[in-house]
Amino acid sequence: MPKRIYSSLSFENHPSLYSFASIAGQKEGEGPMKNYFDHIEQDGMFGEKNWEKAESRLQANTLNLALQKGRLKPVDVDCIIGGDLINQCTGSSFAVRETKIPFLGVYGACSTMAESLLLAGILVDGGYSFRTAAVTSSHFSTAERQFRFPLSYGGQRTPTAQWTCTASGAIVVSAEGEAPYIVGGCIGKINDLGVTDATNMGAAMAPAAADTILRYLQDTSTTPETYDAIITGDLGNIGSPLLIDLLLKQGVDISSVHQDCGALMFDEQKQDTHAGGSGCGCSASILCGYFLPKLQSGEMKKILFAATGALLSAMSSQQGESIPSICHLVEIRSQEGLTC
Amino acid sequence: MPKRIYSSLSFENHPSLYSFASIAGQKEGEGPMKNYFDHIEQDGMFGEKNWEKAESRLQANTLNLALQKGRLKPVDVDCIIGGDLINQCTGSSFAVRETKIPFLGVYGACSTMAESLLLAGILVDGGYSFRTAAVTSSHFSTAERQFRFPLSYGGQRTPTAQWTCTASGAIVVSAEGEAPYIVGGCIGKINDLGVTDATNMGAAMAPAAADTILRYLQDTSTTPETYDAIITGDLGNIGSPLLIDLLLKQGVDISSVHQDCGALMFDEQKQDTHAGGSGCGCSASILCGYFLPKLQSGEMKKILFAATGALLSAMSSQQGESIPSICHLVEIRSQEGLTC
Repeated sequence: MPKRIYSSLSFENHPSLYSFASIAGQKEGEGPMKNYFDHIEQDGMFGEKNWEKAESRLQANTLNLALQKGRLKPVDVDCIIGGDLINQCTGSSFAVRETKIPFLGVYGACSTMAESLLLAGILVDGGYSFRTAAVTSSHFSTAERQFRFPLSYGGQRTPTAQWTCTASGAIVVSAEGEAPYIVGGCIGKINDLGVTDATNMGAAMAPAAADTILRYLQDTSTTPETYDAIITGDLGNIGSPLLIDLLLKQGVDISSVHQDCGALMFDEQKQDTHAGGSGCGCSASILCGYFLPKLQSGEMKKILFAATGALLSAMSSQQGESIPSICHLVEIRSQEGLTC
Repeated sequence: MPKRIYSSLSFENHPSLYSFASIAGQKEGEGPMKNYFDHIEQDGMFGEKNWEKAESRLQANTLNLALQKGRLKPVDVDCIIGGDLINQCTGSSFAVRETKIPFLGVYGACSTMAESLLLAGILVDGGYSFRTAAVTSSHFSTAERQFRFPLSYGGQRTPTAQWTCTASGAIVVSAEGEAPYIVGGCIGKINDLGVTDATNMGAAMAPAAADTILRYLQDTSTTPETYDAIITGDLGNIGSPLLIDLLLKQGVDISSVHQDCGALMFDEQKQDTHAGGSGCGCSASILCGYFLPKLQSGEMKKILFAATGALLSAMSSQQGESIPSICHLVEIRSQEGLTC
């Protein structure tokens, strides 16, 4: 089987998602996903003295938990691929500093877990690594003060705004191991249809998701019905129907299998989160907490995980720029899904 | 030949550095490297209306020039891997937005070209891409106001401070093509010996460079004499002697083959740049402008390119954190170097 099919990738050695873990914050732990996370941390500071250190602690704890669940030590992992939303990705740099594991920093905004998994898949499938960990995080307070307002300002949020989740996910991709398996993926292209409203990222990101999902379906000659779920990262409640509409215009109906991590994270009515969750940790924690166990148990057989990212900065918005968006995709299968 | 040798990688298909380009700013174009860049741009704004857009224009122009020099169109490239120093890596996102080429954003601070080349090498060597471009940039004015002071403030610079270069380099890595070739590399580990002075990044980064270079020499059973040059990214005039000392303590003397892009970029006496150049574009532009042509012509046969990055942010320094540093390495050979 070729490793490239048009613009998609196929992993003939189907690396194992050997172990994985998710940790979420208090608010995320009060939502519909509360029973699925490995750990819910009530202390938003994670025992640290500022929010940035808290996010690094969150990410380090999640990585450690994924290692523990796989009975692995840091020395058993060849490489870590990770990123986050904090300027210069310090959330990850400080999180992995003590591990002494080779580290590749990536930036894909909220698409970072899909980008990290895709690269981890390439490293392991290609024989360049035996075990590579993918890890990402986000923290409401680090994101809010960096991208929006000081928290103490108490700014009003627009109805289209999403809530950056305090959450993290970590996955150890291994050349040997059991299901779930990563069997392929698609590297995203930047799409920018001119949306300038940084409080409506779902709308900005939907075209990127449509582009990547459509390319992968076409490249692999599959239809939405092939999959138990086509999961987007965090289009939320505004972006999700836009994605479905965009794909319908291309003759592809994903409505029966589409799920969105941003929409799944919170109870919009009870938790006052408006358009849903977002952040690198949103899709990462729901993938690790909710979906991967279903692939492990065989409840699901094949999923597409298509995490979306809005590649803006506070400054690019202030300078009047529109929002370049991207969506990276990986296909993950259960043991049965590998052969059927 | 195995693809992994301890913690180093070997590319048995030796991907070609098919085409490459460098563009530098006015000050960089007045230094010792002035005759080697493809283009020196006198307009620091690159025709744009703010510095961030200028940096994106610089990076886009450099990528286009690399494509032109290889007689390639954007459609001939499967993937771009790139990054920069601007918050959320917007320098790169906006630079590649119009290309419609799949994009993987990475963050390695000033090590970004080595990280991008290493990943491009993996993608192409492993058969996941036919041609992947690696591109990075930095701009004095975007970095200065983001990491240090408003430019109009006219802050004094310390003797150990480095000068962020306005420069960019782009390389198309291809499964088919002529020398130079990328034949292997080493993914960096984060090193942090506790340096907290953000105006002395050479000292912070030297241990990371020593760690990676030593690992690669040991893993490949080679000595410094194997190489025509062991090139560090931008340790500058302070970090370079520290690197040589650190390696001497390990019994390895690289002094006769060591060159540093930060030290090469400026004439310290005439240009008032203190400890030398820095920035993602510093090592990238010197690699593309100065070293790769020497490998193309056969003047050099084997080099190690070990770009260093200081993974700090303005906020992490303000919070009293020390500077986590990293160094990624790639080995590049001439046609003759491939067989000798």
